[in-house]
Amino acid sequence: MVTWAKELAEVHAKHVLTPWAVQKRASGPMIVRGEGSFLYDSEGNRYLDLSAGLVAVNLGHGKEQVVQAIQQQAARLCYASPVFFHDQRALLAQGLSQCAPWSEGARVFFTTGGAEANEDAIKMARMITGRQKILSLYRSFHGSTLGAGTLTGEYRRFAGEPGIPGVVHFWGPYLYRSPFFSANEGEESERALRHLELVLLHEDPSRVAAILLEPVVGSNGVLVPPAGYLSGVRELCRRHGILLILDEVMTGFGRLGATFGADRFEVVPDMITFAKGVTSAYVPLGGVLVREGLAATFDEQPLWCGHTYSGHPLAMAAGLGALAAYRDEGLFERAGRIEEWLQRGLRELAKQSPLVGDVRGLGAFFGIELVRSRQTREPLSLWHKPLSQEMGWLQQQLLGRGVYAFCKHNVILVAPPLTITEEELQGGLEQLGETLRRLWEEPSFDLRRG
Amino acid sequence: MVTWAKELAEVHAKHVLTPWAVQKRASGPMIVRGEGSFLYDSEGNRYLDLSAGLVAVNLGHGKEQVVQAIQQQAARLCYASPVFFHDQRALLAQGLSQCAPWSEGARVFFTTGGAEANEDAIKMARMITGRQKILSLYRSFHGSTLGAGTLTGEYRRFAGEPGIPGVVHFWGPYLYRSPFFSANEGEESERALRHLELVLLHEDPSRVAAILLEPVVGSNGVLVPPAGYLSGVRELCRRHGILLILDEVMTGFGRLGATFGADRFEVVPDMITFAKGVTSAYVPLGGVLVREGLAATFDEQPLWCGHTYSGHPLAMAAGLGALAAYRDEGLFERAGRIEEWLQRGLRELAKQSPLVGDVRGLGAFFGIELVRSRQTREPLSLWHKPLSQEMGWLQQQLLGRGVYAFCKHNVILVAPPLTITEEELQGGLEQLGETLRRLWEEPSFDLRRG
Ligand SMILES: Cc1ncc(COP(=O)(O)O)c(C=O)c1O
Ligand SMILES: Cc1ncc(COP(=O)(O)O)c(C=O)c1O
Repeated sequence: MVTWAKELAEVHAKHVLTPWAVQKRASGPMIVRGEGSFLYDSEGNRYLDLSAGLVAVNLGHGKEQVVQAIQQQAARLCYASPVFFHDQRALLAQGLSQCAPWSEGARVFFTTGGAEANEDAIKMARMITGRQKILSLYRSFHGSTLGAGTLTGEYRRFAGEPGIPGVVHFWGPYLYRSPFFSANEGEESERALRHLELVLLHEDPSRVAAILLEPVVGSNGVLVPPAGYLSGVRELCRRHGILLILDEVMTGFGRLGATFGADRFEVVPDMITFAKGVTSAYVPLGGVLVREGLAATFDEQPLWCGHTYSGHPLAMAAGLGALAAYRDEGLFERAGRIEEWLQRGLRELAKQSPLVGDVRGLGAFFGIELVRSRQTREPLSLWHKPLSQEMGWLQQQLLGRGVYAFCKHNVILVAPPLTITEEELQGGLEQLGETLRRLWEEPSFDLRRG
Repeated sequence: MVTWAKELAEVHAKHVLTPWAVQKRASGPMIVRGEGSFLYDSEGNRYLDLSAGLVAVNLGHGKEQVVQAIQQQAARLCYASPVFFHDQRALLAQGLSQCAPWSEGARVFFTTGGAEANEDAIKMARMITGRQKILSLYRSFHGSTLGAGTLTGEYRRFAGEPGIPGVVHFWGPYLYRSPFFSANEGEESERALRHLELVLLHEDPSRVAAILLEPVVGSNGVLVPPAGYLSGVRELCRRHGILLILDEVMTGFGRLGATFGADRFEVVPDMITFAKGVTSAYVPLGGVLVREGLAATFDEQPLWCGHTYSGHPLAMAAGLGALAAYRDEGLFERAGRIEEWLQRGLRELAKQSPLVGDVRGLGAFFGIELVRSRQTREPLSLWHKPLSQEMGWLQQQLLGRGVYAFCKHNVILVAPPLTITEEELQGGLEQLGETLRRLWEEPSFDLRRG
């Protein structure tokens, strides 16, 4: 078993190009099985999946309803050209439309992932409005294809530059490191909106097709917008005939304690892009939810979007299975309870560790921002730089203690499956606390000196 | 049953945005099952899948080995963060590397589809060479994301324009409508190469990172390059330090009677992009095969590519199942036999129908180009225009006769599953012949007058 695992690891290192990595440093446990909140490697070690993969496996691993839906559909039909109608596709589109926040109704365009969803959303926005410019945030991630990469407001976009023309980045609220020099939430919200207005004025709002943003910025730090911000953006869009597109690839399907972030913030967008949670990542799938009034544009004029795997039957079946599981177990609401556990547990963690600069989040989606000093707020790993030794050490130690957490820059993303038990979560947070304590004490890093 | 199907069709029309379509015209049989070369709709009608979906389902439908691989993997593990190693991923990357044409070895970067594969290939080419420009063909399709859309040389790219900078389109060989005014294959090959040399000279070859093309242009007409062309392009690339990327999304995995088009044409590229056939489209998957010498670039510097679903465990298992099925049944070679059947059958068809202007192809990949007149070669449907009434009629009639074929402009793509029997194929071609005869005689089109 161990020899086999070792050989296989060599084969992996020899033949797989690992995403976003310096290849000679790519390595990790060989995961072979998943169950509930846990992953198991080839040597039988188990890991708590504290970030649900890349904030995706909302149902946890091995959810029977989805597994069976996949198995049954696999036997019936895996794929047919998307020019055909398909039973599962009709039902999933209907189910998703019922999840959408529009009383007028909705339609769905299916893609294979989140990046394609965002690209198709901006293509549709341009077709619908006849306008060209798209506004998106610095400190955002919208995917790595060359269009979605241009929307992205962080360093993973640079390798695709220069990207597509017409994308303008603006600044969003982030009180802990306020780009507007604000002192409190109210100020941050108000100034962020005034900043956006100013950007719009200087870009000419009548040339802006859409503003695209994550309701809670995900992999760039779990940035929760202050009260009034998203509704303010909605109002600016309304005033100028600009479409509001919410990228709910991470926030959708219960992550924030509601079906979509749109519901949690009570803001009504024009389109919602989704992926990940729609199938709990069991089969690759993404898409764009479009409110009926806009979707009808394409009744008379062609929709110039398409992918081989659009509306893929196997993915449709997985989506239907996932929707049923979310409903049956009330998981869109369950993150409300996880939020309480996390609030309590992470507040405790922050008390114990001087490395914790900020803790923020909503529902089952929290970020722990680590700093070298609470006074200077110097990040434990710098943005736009390779991961610091300390953050690398932390991730390794966590894994060694049976906890996987997705870390980006100096932020640990805590975003467990929505099915996690209080006890499992508690166990994970204890390991996290212990790891932070050891990091603080690790002589080679000398963090105590601050 | 029928009421259920009718209701479901209404739900589909109400909630699904169909790719590349004017929505009010989107309709079609509700496909619910597949078996071998056939698809079945909700009313029990069966359709011969004469284009293997979108030239993707190389193994036909319901191939047991793949279905079982999916079912077993679904129970074990559907998804984990791609930072982990994964057993099936190691094995599939190894299997694909063994399929690759390089003695030096190969590595694979996995994506969810063909468009992402092409985008990641050009990102890698730019990182590796430090150069910016990419050359691709007019009359080509490389995907619809905004980068792959820019590479694309036909009208499906316009909605994404202006796309990414640095892409230059050149003309490829197409003897039936020669852009070089050639009289024969030899001339077409030689002139196409001189044209490419001229383009390179005027773009400065030392600024060109890669030339990306389909070994046989697929959805834009099944254009088979004349002898000497691809090896000539290879030689030009070599001379100027330009990477040659073959887009084998359609041509890979046995379509041309060899593992890859590269093998069939005996030309050795630097990268191969793939999708579709890799899983026979059973689970969404794509990727880039990179020769070892280039892949090693990313041992020391980061590979700036990544997708949530990169190396997706369920897709990996499907890919391994598909590779095993291809091998066990000798399907990479079987297209050689299908080629004979198609040569014979389509030559017959061309003799019978004055609408057939040209028939061309290789392996199990043929195009029938329809014209209003063999003298003027006026296409039965114009490029860059909506599909003509005649072509629309033809597709509908074919479906009514139990045959699905993917038509683009004035070309019918004949690209059956590699498992098709001679009898099944014969049946499909008969229906095709009969449909062409009726189209010719259809009074409302008045095609006989020429
Ligand atoms: C908010 C957001 N949008 C889009 C994407 C891109 O999704 P994909 O990786 O499926 O292309 C991600 C991926 O992490 C994301 O977090
Ligand atoms: C040659 C070629 N490349 C790329 C693509 C794009 O693949 P996908 O639709 O999976 O993005 C296609 C799709 O038909 C294709 O035929």
